[in-house]
Amino acid sequence: MAKKEQFVSHITPRSEDFSRWYTDVILQTQMVDYGPVKGTMVIRPYGYGVWELIQKELDARFKSVGVENAYFPMLIPESFLQREAEHVEGFAPEVALVTYAGGENLAERLVVRPTSETMICEMFSRWVQSWRDLPMKVNQWCNVVRWEKSTRPFLRTSEFLWQEGHTIHETAEGAEEDALKMLEIYRELAEDVCAMPVFVGQKSESEKFAGAQSTYSMEAMMQDGKALQAGTTHNLGQHFAKVFNIQYLSKDGQLEYVHQTSWGVSTRLIGGIVMTHGDERGLALPPKVAPIQVVILPIAMHKEGVLEEARKLEDRLRKAGIRVKLDDREQSAGWKFNEWEMKGVPLRLEIGPRDLENGQATAVRRDTLEKFTLPLEGLEKAVLETLDKVQQGLYDRARTRRDERIFTVTNLEEMVEAVDVKQGFAKGMWCGDAACEAELKAKTGITTRNMPFEQEHLGDVCCHCGKPATRLMYFGKQY
Amino acid sequence: MAKKEQFVSHITPRSEDFSRWYTDVILQTQMVDYGPVKGTMVIRPYGYGVWELIQKELDARFKSVGVENAYFPMLIPESFLQREAEHVEGFAPEVALVTYAGGENLAERLVVRPTSETMICEMFSRWVQSWRDLPMKVNQWCNVVRWEKSTRPFLRTSEFLWQEGHTIHETAEGAEEDALKMLEIYRELAEDVCAMPVFVGQKSESEKFAGAQSTYSMEAMMQDGKALQAGTTHNLGQHFAKVFNIQYLSKDGQLEYVHQTSWGVSTRLIGGIVMTHGDERGLALPPKVAPIQVVILPIAMHKEGVLEEARKLEDRLRKAGIRVKLDDREQSAGWKFNEWEMKGVPLRLEIGPRDLENGQATAVRRDTLEKFTLPLEGLEKAVLETLDKVQQGLYDRARTRRDERIFTVTNLEEMVEAVDVKQGFAKGMWCGDAACEAELKAKTGITTRNMPFEQEHLGDVCCHCGKPATRLMYFGKQY
Repeated sequence: MAKKEQFVSHITPRSEDFSRWYTDVILQTQMVDYGPVKGTMVIRPYGYGVWELIQKELDARFKSVGVENAYFPMLIPESFLQREAEHVEGFAPEVALVTYAGGENLAERLVVRPTSETMICEMFSRWVQSWRDLPMKVNQWCNVVRWEKSTRPFLRTSEFLWQEGHTIHETAEGAEEDALKMLEIYRELAEDVCAMPVFVGQKSESEKFAGAQSTYSMEAMMQDGKALQAGTTHNLGQHFAKVFNIQYLSKDGQLEYVHQTSWGVSTRLIGGIVMTHGDERGLALPPKVAPIQVVILPIAMHKEGVLEEARKLEDRLRKAGIRVKLDDREQSAGWKFNEWEMKGVPLRLEIGPRDLENGQATAVRRDTLEKFTLPLEGLEKAVLETLDKVQQGLYDRARTRRDERIFTVTNLEEMVEAVDVKQGFAKGMWCGDAACEAELKAKTGITTRNMPFEQEHLGDVCCHCGKPATRLMYFGKQY
Repeated sequence: MAKKEQFVSHITPRSEDFSRWYTDVILQTQMVDYGPVKGTMVIRPYGYGVWELIQKELDARFKSVGVENAYFPMLIPESFLQREAEHVEGFAPEVALVTYAGGENLAERLVVRPTSETMICEMFSRWVQSWRDLPMKVNQWCNVVRWEKSTRPFLRTSEFLWQEGHTIHETAEGAEEDALKMLEIYRELAEDVCAMPVFVGQKSESEKFAGAQSTYSMEAMMQDGKALQAGTTHNLGQHFAKVFNIQYLSKDGQLEYVHQTSWGVSTRLIGGIVMTHGDERGLALPPKVAPIQVVILPIAMHKEGVLEEARKLEDRLRKAGIRVKLDDREQSAGWKFNEWEMKGVPLRLEIGPRDLENGQATAVRRDTLEKFTLPLEGLEKAVLETLDKVQQGLYDRARTRRDERIFTVTNLEEMVEAVDVKQGFAKGMWCGDAACEAELKAKTGITTRNMPFEQEHLGDVCCHCGKPATRLMYFGKQY
């Protein structure tokens, strides 16, 4: 029982070992736990609460652009996966197979979905008949399984949660437009909701999704300078449509293949939020994804009026739509400060006898640890404004931190220094050659991240191989 | 393209073949489709929309009683399932197994969860330490796999969606209380949201969940008189706690086993809604679970002002929080009437030149097909009131229909007549003997449904075997 009576944080300092810091934070805040099968995770309520908020934000945005939710079977005939050559090559090493069910071995093995293009293509091919049925836009919130060798909770696990959207269109332009539109929704989610700045752009040929015509991504920089691919959208062209025979009768009465997209973000975003904002004290959650936005701590709780006033405040803030928690446990104030700071609650309100006398609450922002008072009168508005400031403050801090670690490079030596020594991203001109990219990765572990939509001309030769360069690329080491 | 130009419904009459009627309705309304693997289903947007509304209603109720959402891994070591003897016996015949993953055969086979008691028990045993940690209440929204031989979309499929809640408590009373509380939430969902009357009560020993101490259920009667078990809650006692060693340090400093519950409802509810309210024209959806509550049909759409006014109306209703759709497709009004009636939209509003002149809309309720006019001024309020009436109307109709088919019986002959001839439930005294129940089922296909909480004393002997009877039981044939 001692564990309840004193607060002991065992978080490894960020500077000492970022990777252990991350694991300590996510386990000790009870966001996640390891599952019994190697490589799996249990998303505990505090972590799942973040996911629910992400879902709510994204789901509303999807619906606003005409996407409808649906649910497709998880078990995919192995033969489906094999139809698209690049697709099977990309996913085969990671698949999990159901071979036995209902008391007998199955005639055809079933793949536990690593992604659902093949399943959804099969259904699209049954559903679409004429141009009137297009575009068709569906999304599903579900689990997927990719059997990874090296795993870490949220970032890479054998099973994870995500959403996968799939659209089909009459024209190539329609598909391209949606691939970009969904990426913009992801960017908005990352930056405006998760307060995590990202670069949006196109992946190289080697790094694109297995079976795609082109893949777009958003890339965030974690505090150790590593890149997190935080969401991708794919223009699948007609690759899958031809394999799965998704044809429609055009306005001209011709049978045509559809043009297609798919796009997804996953619970990996939670890991991104942790590694973007956390500090020595633990988590720091942006208010928009914080399951608890405000914690109210009664000081000298048993003094007359304190707890009553704290309860009133809780009630008022809840009615104002704020996710608030009153901590009336029998623990010392110091213990509670530490715990809620570790858990990253954006704003702490303390209310004690002196605060009551002065008609105020003492507030502490999680991002700056700045302490100030707020009058009880009109507190709702002040709290909402403060939460906005915390949201913006976290974004600005992350943005500054990231921008300081973007280094323009013109040769390999500079690139290695930028990525390995200064721990950031290298920004340089690139030739576009897959062989150059492969060699770079093999030699240094550095990978191409994406070619930003906002291109700049920094020179004429590739910063790695020296051959003529045609585009600007971000380089980094990836999670 | 002809399919777009005339409306052809191919719904088998209910009276002719209820089972084919059901399949026709769910397929033609595009609620669902068959998946490529036998026994699986694709939940299409119109069906998934119903599920989303059910989720929203339930989720808010769960949270209001302190339940938090989480997510547990889907793949369970086979050895976990084997620990609780009754549990494995109940589920072993239906499990699907992953035997190969990441390029190799697995050392231990993994069960695709048919339910997650064993997985969650393992985690509870790690998380709970003292009485301070109790109660612990988690829920997950997820997919489960049960490999069934005979399947039907929504009612019984190899994979389905559900929620499963799991709670642990210090006392037996705490667990019992929650098992009943969650059943009450389910009853509220069924009756007040899905407009589907249910009997709540306790299942017999033979019919309870594999591993439970007692199981409670809600049982609904479909229009063919068959019973649908629409939701269950289980008091698991300490069965799983002892097997998974879920112990806590009590206030007295003793190590004690927790008392446990689990409870779930699934996408089966959607099938229940269809079979409770549908008619010869197709679906009839209760407004609270209707993805589209109101459809607006402009009549003589191209006459001046009609479409503009229809759009204004759509906008007004949407702002009032009503799920509304304007159907401005180039189809005849008759075609649209038929389609939206088939799709079960609770209220249709027609607006044509004459309606405009009179400052009104013509309204048609889906439940009664009653036609009336509503003034455009204050339409929002009138529509909301009408939707309430439709909700209540559907419930009342279903309730009357069900109540007329409950027959009190005192012997086997009467029971068979009640269930097989009159197609309803038999209500009679029962001895409580598993052998009597098994014999009844073998001979007649009739099963015990539940022992209602509102017991009545109808006599002293079992209506099947004639031995002394101790409780009132509902009997019927089940889906």
